Amino acid sequence: MALIECIPNVSEGRRADVIERMADAIRSTSGARLLDCSSDAAHNRSVFTLAGDAGGVEAAVLALFERAIADIDLRTHRGEHPRLGAVDVVPFVPIEGVTMADCVALAKKVGAAVAERFRVPVYLYEEASDNPTRKNLEDIRRGEFEGLAAKMTLEAWAPDFAPAGPVAPHPTAGASVIGARMALIAYNINLATDRLDVAKKIAAAIRHSSGGYRFVKAAGFKLEDRGIVQVSMNLTNYEKTPIFRVFETVKREAERYGVSILESEIVGLVPSVALVSASEFYLQLAGFKSDQVLENRLSSYK
Amino acid sequence: MALIECIPNVSEGRRADVIERMADAIRSTSGARLLDCSSDAAHNRSVFTLAGDAGGVEAAVLALFERAIADIDLRTHRGEHPRLGAVDVVPFVPIEGVTMADCVALAKKVGAAVAERFRVPVYLYEEASDNPTRKNLEDIRRGEFEGLAAKMTLEAWAPDFAPAGPVAPHPTAGASVIGARMALIAYNINLATDRLDVAKKIAAAIRHSSGGYRFVKAAGFKLEDRGIVQVSMNLTNYEKTPIFRVFETVKREAERYGVSILESEIVGLVPSVALVSASEFYLQLAGFKSDQVLENRLSSYK
Repeated sequence: MALIECIPNVSEGRRADVIERMADAIRSTSGARLLDCSSDAAHNRSVFTLAGDAGGVEAAVLALFERAIADIDLRTHRGEHPRLGAVDVVPFVPIEGVTMADCVALAKKVGAAVAERFRVPVYLYEEASDNPTRKNLEDIRRGEFEGLAAKMTLEAWAPDFAPAGPVAPHPTAGASVIGARMALIAYNINLATDRLDVAKKIAAAIRHSSGGYRFVKAAGFKLEDRGIVQVSMNLTNYEKTPIFRVFETVKREAERYGVSILESEIVGLVPSVALVSASEFYLQLAGFKSDQVLENRLSSYK
Repeated sequence: MALIECIPNVSEGRRADVIERMADAIRSTSGARLLDCSSDAAHNRSVFTLAGDAGGVEAAVLALFERAIADIDLRTHRGEHPRLGAVDVVPFVPIEGVTMADCVALAKKVGAAVAERFRVPVYLYEEASDNPTRKNLEDIRRGEFEGLAAKMTLEAWAPDFAPAGPVAPHPTAGASVIGARMALIAYNINLATDRLDVAKKIAAAIRHSSGGYRFVKAAGFKLEDRGIVQVSMNLTNYEKTPIFRVFETVKREAERYGVSILESEIVGLVPSVALVSASEFYLQLAGFKSDQVLENRLSSYK
């Protein structure tokens, strides 16, 4: 089974009818399934999660673009979350039976189609971009929709895919950022203490920005209502920085302060293989193949 | 998604054309998939693994019966493995979105159909039987095909489903044992030692028959070629006696002899949930729901 996840972020989080029409646009295509939709009114933004094979995901994303461009006008859009376009960000994520290269190719194919069909300029990001200044979404999005017309005229910020004619944002839909990345796991570890300093020190020890693991973002928080603290993390590449290694490191660092792990939690979705690899580690499984998982065997025979 | 696994054991392990025709019979039905077929010439026996929803598995098993009865004659069948019938044993196993009660109901439905349609008497076993003397497959099969005609006349061994007319085995296909059970995990732990006594003592400590866990069968073996020993196990109910608890107990018992675990291995298929539950244990995951596994979410939307 070839399985790609796609998580389009759209600049509409308030008008329920508009959001529902976009969800319907995704559902109306075949070959991909809409797994989740969550909207944030303060951000005025919705995040769709869908999955399917390359062709299915492509068709669903293009259907979403068509609907979003018709219903969203960035000139009047207000919200707390930075945004550049009506369909703001579209990451493709390899889950099963596909490579990152497959997802990069898909991002480029969809990017070209969006520019041509909808006249929306497209920036490629993360794995889909070879340009180091375009790896990071925040760099591309800086200046937002309001600053886009000026930014786009700079040679350094020419779009990767632009409609024919003068280089300019789409008047109401701005530009879109399309790319490929690893699945992101939102992972929190709660400590059996109320000492915020311990959570902050552990977060600093494990996160990339301060010398920790390459694919960990982390911060320490207080959970006031429960009287405990939390190391809150994003694991941005669960293959290269696996969940079990992060857990064991947090556990060992906490011990140094006489603190135990109370529990951990995965927020949202997690690919099966990220949990299976934890089992392989702890059970010291040798020679385990993913097609020994009954459900995987079944799907590969579909 | 409703997913039932079925593992029919058939009394033919030598004639490749006959085995292939049986596999084709399973494949010719829809709603279930043939995941594996392994044949043993010495046992003169083949084991098919298939999975699907209740209706799909039922259709596949009945198609297998029709083919097997036409091609197999127990009167001339010889092999090392004990057997009672052409289709010797048919266990139904709940995997996902179905209960054991569903599988018991399916075993009874298929059992009644086999007796009526093919005139093969059927014994229910394990969870599908309320009779304590019929829980254990070996008790039902004792005496084998050759002793079946005499055994069947005993009141205690009247079939659960019998064709109309005098109670007697099918002349060439004997009788079949059909039932429901939990998925069985074949699990081995290799110890970093050549001391067979340690493997045997650990096996005795963890297996049900000598005071260990309720759903563990275990024995100690020497792996001569590797110079190590193995605790070889069948885990017969991974929900009630989970794999991580067995692993941790073997590890602790081995420590008592100054021995470490070298590695463990899962032989054949394992349901995803058995590995996910190990991750939940080791990562101390709180409030984790199986539909957070991306692949599960996807299949539940199909």
